[in-house]
Amino acid sequence: MNKAIIKHINKLQQKKYRNEFGEFLVEGVKGVGEALEHAEVQQLIVDGKRRDEDQLAGLILAAQKKDIPVEFAGHNEISDIKATETFSGILALVSMHDNDLEDLVNDMPIICTVGVRDPGNLGTIIRTADWFGISNILLSGDSVDAYNPKVVRSTMGSLFRANLRESEDLVYDLRLMKDDGYEIVALDMKGDDISKLEPSKKSIYLFGSESHGVDKELDSLISKRYTIPGAGKAESLNVAIAAGIVMSNL
Amino acid sequence: MNKAIIKHINKLQQKKYRNEFGEFLVEGVKGVGEALEHAEVQQLIVDGKRRDEDQLAGLILAAQKKDIPVEFAGHNEISDIKATETFSGILALVSMHDNDLEDLVNDMPIICTVGVRDPGNLGTIIRTADWFGISNILLSGDSVDAYNPKVVRSTMGSLFRANLRESEDLVYDLRLMKDDGYEIVALDMKGDDISKLEPSKKSIYLFGSESHGVDKELDSLISKRYTIPGAGKAESLNVAIAAGIVMSNL
Repeated sequence: MNKAIIKHINKLQQKKYRNEFGEFLVEGVKGVGEALEHAEVQQLIVDGKRRDEDQLAGLILAAQKKDIPVEFAGHNEISDIKATETFSGILALVSMHDNDLEDLVNDMPIICTVGVRDPGNLGTIIRTADWFGISNILLSGDSVDAYNPKVVRSTMGSLFRANLRESEDLVYDLRLMKDDGYEIVALDMKGDDISKLEPSKKSIYLFGSESHGVDKELDSLISKRYTIPGAGKAESLNVAIAAGIVMSNL
Repeated sequence: MNKAIIKHINKLQQKKYRNEFGEFLVEGVKGVGEALEHAEVQQLIVDGKRRDEDQLAGLILAAQKKDIPVEFAGHNEISDIKATETFSGILALVSMHDNDLEDLVNDMPIICTVGVRDPGNLGTIIRTADWFGISNILLSGDSVDAYNPKVVRSTMGSLFRANLRESEDLVYDLRLMKDDGYEIVALDMKGDDISKLEPSKKSIYLFGSESHGVDKELDSLISKRYTIPGAGKAESLNVAIAAGIVMSNL
């Protein structure tokens, strides 16, 4: 295996190189399988010693059928790869795919994260949306990016079914959507009881990061606010839990 | 500051030493504040250079009022402390408090985790329960322990308001509770729609780890099963999200 490939892989741990090359990493059998099915895979890297294991052999075959190059890595090469955790036998280099705003205009609501910086939280939100059949995900520019390896892993394959847009100017995007008839709905501490929420397909549901709440700049665009009523003393709900509860009401 | 204290602190990163000493670590202003209010704090360790900062000075005063010893650490000592992330200026050594089964018998339902190994998931479940005013938490022996530093941190202080029991034999505990009139309710893939759940205070809600589902051994004890209906292609919901949605229905 070419040393340049390992260098390239390790660079893709960083956002600036992911954006430069338009590629990101997917680790593990489950994620790579989903990527081969739903995304544009550039290359597979497989632990050469484990190539005959059933699951890995199946993925290698699937890649070869699509003329996707497969590289086999030796022991030393694997130890040079900076994977999220220990190298899980297989990884894929996958093309990033960002959508235009109009690609999110379809027969479904939109989940929008504002400044969600924890990769596990963003990944879990994307996975939960997929569970409820919601594919439209709009991310503010200051959210962790969806191609961060920890986000990718915690989406458990749901990333590849998401209809994703990373917005460079969220206020601008939301204004356009509002002009198009969308209702901007936010979860915060001072809204109506969430049980009163009436689901609508032309709605954008905002989830702000816990420490900041929903951005003040967006305030004027929000037409409805809901609260998940609590009975205890906890200061707040985790943003992914809050999003999950809202989505279960849609 | 005594070197033995640093050794002791670092040992408390490991479960076997936490159990041996009956103590665990709480890091950061928020957690230490909650510990001083709700738990038995043995000792505070404070970054000596930062002792005059408002928040830290307030906590030092609160500790001194309760005759809790406060140690000030110098630069070198701090770099010897293995905290979860960078040392956040303050940490507390706190006594572990495990409850008997009968301590969980009160006017509230019980949240029970079965084999939940991810610290972030367990911490988030405890925090979410606190949000909904549910303090009774029963953990199976193969769950991550609640005093793991990552669990402590992700409960965001809710740990100290929890009425917690780590069960050594969950099947035995659940049998006793069932004999006492409790209903064992599980979330799984083949139950009734969660919207049909009728909350009861004499219920124990089981949440299994994602890869195993609820333990087969417990099967015979479960009298009701519910499902969170999904419309998408995700294989499963994250266990903390599932627990959050169930708790929002209680």
